[in-house]
Amino acid sequence: MRNFKIFAFVAASLLSAALCGCDGKTADAEVAVIELPVPERPAGQEDVIGLALPPMNTVRVGFIGLGMRGPGAVERFTHLDGVKIVALCDIRPERVAFSSDIVTKAGMPEPVGYSGDSTVWKQLCDRDDIDLVYICTDWDTHVPMAVYAMEHGKNVAVEVPATTSLDECWLMVNTAEKTRKHCMMLENCCYDFFEMATLNMAQKGLLGDLVHAEGAYIHDLRSLSFDETPGGYYDMWRLKHNTVHNGNPYPTHGLGPVSQALDINRGDKYDYLVSMSSDQYGIGKYAAKVKGEDSPEAKKDYALGDMNVTMIRTDNGKTIMIQHDVTSPRPYDRKHALSGTKGFIQKYPVEGIAIEPNTHRFLAKEQHDSVMALYTHPIVMEIGEMAKKVGGHGGMDFIMDYRLIYCLRNGLPLDMNVYDAAAWSCIAPLSEISVANNSAPVRVPDFTRGAWNKEKGFKHAMAAAE
Amino acid sequence: MRNFKIFAFVAASLLSAALCGCDGKTADAEVAVIELPVPERPAGQEDVIGLALPPMNTVRVGFIGLGMRGPGAVERFTHLDGVKIVALCDIRPERVAFSSDIVTKAGMPEPVGYSGDSTVWKQLCDRDDIDLVYICTDWDTHVPMAVYAMEHGKNVAVEVPATTSLDECWLMVNTAEKTRKHCMMLENCCYDFFEMATLNMAQKGLLGDLVHAEGAYIHDLRSLSFDETPGGYYDMWRLKHNTVHNGNPYPTHGLGPVSQALDINRGDKYDYLVSMSSDQYGIGKYAAKVKGEDSPEAKKDYALGDMNVTMIRTDNGKTIMIQHDVTSPRPYDRKHALSGTKGFIQKYPVEGIAIEPNTHRFLAKEQHDSVMALYTHPIVMEIGEMAKKVGGHGGMDFIMDYRLIYCLRNGLPLDMNVYDAAAWSCIAPLSEISVANNSAPVRVPDFTRGAWNKEKGFKHAMAAAE
Repeated sequence: MRNFKIFAFVAASLLSAALCGCDGKTADAEVAVIELPVPERPAGQEDVIGLALPPMNTVRVGFIGLGMRGPGAVERFTHLDGVKIVALCDIRPERVAFSSDIVTKAGMPEPVGYSGDSTVWKQLCDRDDIDLVYICTDWDTHVPMAVYAMEHGKNVAVEVPATTSLDECWLMVNTAEKTRKHCMMLENCCYDFFEMATLNMAQKGLLGDLVHAEGAYIHDLRSLSFDETPGGYYDMWRLKHNTVHNGNPYPTHGLGPVSQALDINRGDKYDYLVSMSSDQYGIGKYAAKVKGEDSPEAKKDYALGDMNVTMIRTDNGKTIMIQHDVTSPRPYDRKHALSGTKGFIQKYPVEGIAIEPNTHRFLAKEQHDSVMALYTHPIVMEIGEMAKKVGGHGGMDFIMDYRLIYCLRNGLPLDMNVYDAAAWSCIAPLSEISVANNSAPVRVPDFTRGAWNKEKGFKHAMAAAE
Repeated sequence: MRNFKIFAFVAASLLSAALCGCDGKTADAEVAVIELPVPERPAGQEDVIGLALPPMNTVRVGFIGLGMRGPGAVERFTHLDGVKIVALCDIRPERVAFSSDIVTKAGMPEPVGYSGDSTVWKQLCDRDDIDLVYICTDWDTHVPMAVYAMEHGKNVAVEVPATTSLDECWLMVNTAEKTRKHCMMLENCCYDFFEMATLNMAQKGLLGDLVHAEGAYIHDLRSLSFDETPGGYYDMWRLKHNTVHNGNPYPTHGLGPVSQALDINRGDKYDYLVSMSSDQYGIGKYAAKVKGEDSPEAKKDYALGDMNVTMIRTDNGKTIMIQHDVTSPRPYDRKHALSGTKGFIQKYPVEGIAIEPNTHRFLAKEQHDSVMALYTHPIVMEIGEMAKKVGGHGGMDFIMDYRLIYCLRNGLPLDMNVYDAAAWSCIAPLSEISVANNSAPVRVPDFTRGAWNKEKGFKHAMAAAE
């Protein structure tokens, strides 16, 4: 899997191009789409679309990675019915103790703790009293842990992106298919109240046929990336990643919600992408400011361009634009725009909904609020108030955990399957390849290996009414 | 000029790609950038950068095209000092009469009228008492008229885009160089009060080094495109164009202002672009609604995708994203975003400015207003109040005309030269080529043929203080 297979079509291109002419009037050439090998599905293995496991009365959970995202997850789980926090793991014992306190203060039994080295997480996965391993570590350790956990009989929830490596996307998919275990990526933005309302609008036809969507992760992380205290990324892993990788390493917050609205892997799929990065301007300047002009940090080359724009075209001719910028001094922005034949919505910098009959203006506040109320997602109706109380990015993190546990306890397919994790995450390595090749188009692999059209339309599975 | 020259580098690509691997970790391959031929500059011809002609006391003007944009231009010219409206031309005599009335009602002499057929505009260009031909016709006739006018000793102002043909870009450039005449594209958005203020901010360093910019033309023109009355596009030319062309046919409103801020053709230049279009969803549906499900209009194939996103990378490693959508039911949006190492601004859907020290939030209204006041462009300070009274898209059209006449009367270089017209307009044909080739990268020709670095930084020429 270490080679490109480039379908260059050079002769055909030159011919078509000549016919096409500079004005492109009859343009129908096919120029060099970079195609990456799709490994054959191992014999005896089937897809896990719609995978449902026997209902679990109590979901027994082990957490790995208790630095930044982990403790919040542990805390949220103390508010969920039908879970047992069995074990906690982090390299640093003090991080285990910190999260353990959260559990015991909630009146729950003290979990078993694992810490001390970078392999101790395997002991957690080896236990036979855990149903779900919840992974909140750095990007590079997600898949090794997820694969080991699945191989040892565990279901897996893994932070975003699941991986930044295409090889690991396939490894994750193959392991999930082989072991028949759930592997869900924890894309919390799919559970934001606004995103869920707009998904509801799209599914109910308010926007007509969706044509174009936008998402982004624009978040000035300079300060956090250079934070060497325990409050920063462990061992500064994020800055280290961004020092050697270009493209969009973190595409899923913007991509997840719009991909659900577009029924990706459920009637449509990504076809190809192109990606462009600016040069790096801001990281070096920031390093010089906080570390000194002559510091090694200021003199280092950082691979990550400040701004990356990636465009994805789908088989059904829809387009998705995804941006990434963690360096520029800008207000936070996830875009979240959905453009259809009957209406348009966008979330940033201010929420706006334009629907027929007058789409030349966004709805005024009162109408906006009433449409939002009308299209509040049923799951938000059910659990939204509690989610706001528990918190976690305004409540969306709790709804995500709630749904994960709800589906496991009811023996339902999860909202996001391993193909979603792979498709959304693979934009990281594929965008990097495109950027390194003058933004050339790169085919997005079909991780379902032909089954992307098996389910029609994205749905949240719900238990039959009692 | 009818062939692509594709620098395929296939062998090199395969080698680099193999080294790079699926994860793109050391990616440095070069895959197929479509290169279009750059014709050699004809012998004895020099660039027209900084072109200044002898001051004209009175600028004698002839207008061609008095359908949609023309009458407004005629009206604005009645408010300018030092101009004489000599002649008016349109195929339809009633359109000439309409604009002629505007002139006489303003107390000016009745202009000579030309109408009746599609070649009568040549008679206007043949006159020897005209300094400037102002062209407001459909896209396809801009360059033939501009070239003929220059060949007959006239300076030219031409509506946007100057052309949608790459051949015509070169023809326009070559003619301007040969005749040493001005050829300015009427990119009015460069003169919008907000755009001018942000240009001023950028030039004064408020945003630090600019890294990324965005522009758009998102304007639901469905109703106007299908309008067969005299209030619509003459002979429905815009819909006809969009029936056979894909890509971004109308890129300059978004691109012009950000290109001035980025010093394009004055220290930086466009390097290559990639462009992606969605399929066409909305035009056919609209045609069915207004013309009937079984109408020829509803059954026609329309080439133009509803949404086009084009990304341009510059030689200095900056990125520009330009969008085009005249079909989707959305509020008007030109984006106009500038992202730098010290701050960020955007115009749509609401004006926002974020500058150090707190760039995590846009400035509150009071601060916003005071920054806007502080950075009001000097030209707006001078002529803004009058421009608001005269009107034309809120005043920007008048400032544009004012500057054109001011520079001609003072013997100064115009704000936008023929290379700007060509570079900004060529995005139309180049985006079409990219879209037709799976969004493959296309090199943007250097219309200055090596002189893009001759001037350092974009400036508005000003007469020496008296």
